[in-house]
Amino acid sequence: MVEPAGLRTGIGVDVHPIEAGRPCRLALLDWPDVPGCAGHSDADVAAHAACNALLSAAGLGDLGQVFGTADPQWAGASGAELLAEVVRRVAAAGWTVANVAVQVIGNSPRIGPRRVAAEAAMSAVVGAPVSLAAATTDGLGFLGNDEGRAAVASCLLLRA
Amino acid sequence: MVEPAGLRTGIGVDVHPIEAGRPCRLALLDWPDVPGCAGHSDADVAAHAACNALLSAAGLGDLGQVFGTADPQWAGASGAELLAEVVRRVAAAGWTVANVAVQVIGNSPRIGPRRVAAEAAMSAVVGAPVSLAAATTDGLGFLGNDEGRAAVASCLLLRA
Amino acid sequence: MVEPAGLRTGIGVDVHPIEAGRPCRLALLDWPDVPGCAGHSDADVAAHAACNALLSAAGLGDLGQVFGTADPQWAGASGAELLAEVVRRVAAAGWTVANVAVQVIGNSPRIGPRRVAAEAAMSAVVGAPVSLAAATTDGLGFLGNDEGRAAVASCLLLRA
Repeated sequence: MVEPAGLRTGIGVDVHPIEAGRPCRLALLDWPDVPGCAGHSDADVAAHAACNALLSAAGLGDLGQVFGTADPQWAGASGAELLAEVVRRVAAAGWTVANVAVQVIGNSPRIGPRRVAAEAAMSAVVGAPVSLAAATTDGLGFLGNDEGRAAVASCLLLRA
Repeated sequence: MVEPAGLRTGIGVDVHPIEAGRPCRLALLDWPDVPGCAGHSDADVAAHAACNALLSAAGLGDLGQVFGTADPQWAGASGAELLAEVVRRVAAAGWTVANVAVQVIGNSPRIGPRRVAAEAAMSAVVGAPVSLAAATTDGLGFLGNDEGRAAVASCLLLRA
Repeated sequence: MVEPAGLRTGIGVDVHPIEAGRPCRLALLDWPDVPGCAGHSDADVAAHAACNALLSAAGLGDLGQVFGTADPQWAGASGAELLAEVVRRVAAAGWTVANVAVQVIGNSPRIGPRRVAAEAAMSAVVGAPVSLAAATTDGLGFLGNDEGRAAVASCLLLRA
């Protein structure tokens, strides 16, 4: 197989249930007064979707494969720690990140007022531009009734 | 942070509830005899997902941030008006659109017979190729029981 | 309309209901002891999402339009057959595939142990790197209660 280009796209998804009383960590920021998500690690759906997109573009699997919920080294790891390790692996495989785009889907938190700070935090870890945006399902399904929060991400890699 | 390439990917989502009796506007076309969507503006999920993908690639936020449901200037704006304004902002930020790909998810309308017309309408506003395709959830969830209609879009931008 | 670049992104989705007792075909592999999906053809959501992403990037419609469920030529076609035909059409339209990234969403099968084999099978048909990854919805919705299985895919095409 001839490799047609030193350019790769990737796509990643992450979903977690919302759990009343748990602190909310999203896009590497804390969101006081917003219910957080249940899950292994800090359940940061934005960081996790970005990780999955980067791993998918580089053909390195996904969060579950790389960090396995049974692996004590990564139990309770933050989204920032997972993202940094993913970026390290993507670079070790010979790729440079062009950009990552993350779209959060759910009713909360309101991203707008803190978008620039969240993007700066994620971009600093990735070493390339990361954008953060949000949409709702207008009340439909488990993302509309506050049962869960999701994120979907795409990214572009260049051969280093 | 060094910018690794004059190339960006973006991803966008939009979901609206279907409302019996409301006219259906999708991908800038009217679809007679198809129930439309409830929502701010004309609830054109294809146009809105394209807007979100373009804003996300350029790091300019999302529809809710840019056009805010409380902003009277954009109350009732059509998908074409929102898309034109998004393209204007993306260009002002120094980007050229390479292409946009939109996938509608839901039972209706049947895109196939009018796909080329819808793509022409969207491409004319964007000034670059926009493709439109569709999938169903085979009856599952709120997209399968005609409660809602969704679209997901990706795009590619080049530094102008 | 001036075409800004010989580069296209595409996005595709596929969803099928899980049907107890039906053999599972996913990413061109058989998964013994995993319930398969109902649907036209072999209901391989990974292959179908990849097809939709490729068709969307090339502006050639979607699986439903290209292979129509009423067309006897494609009744019962395997994911590999559909994917090969899609790649043929994309090439005939003047495009080379740079890569395809597929993310399966659902509880089963466990992709990890057979990821490399599945990627090799899909890459051989596409003639370019195809990555396969997975995520769950943590029990939420029809993808979390084993009613259905979904995949979302992105791809990158280059002008041949």
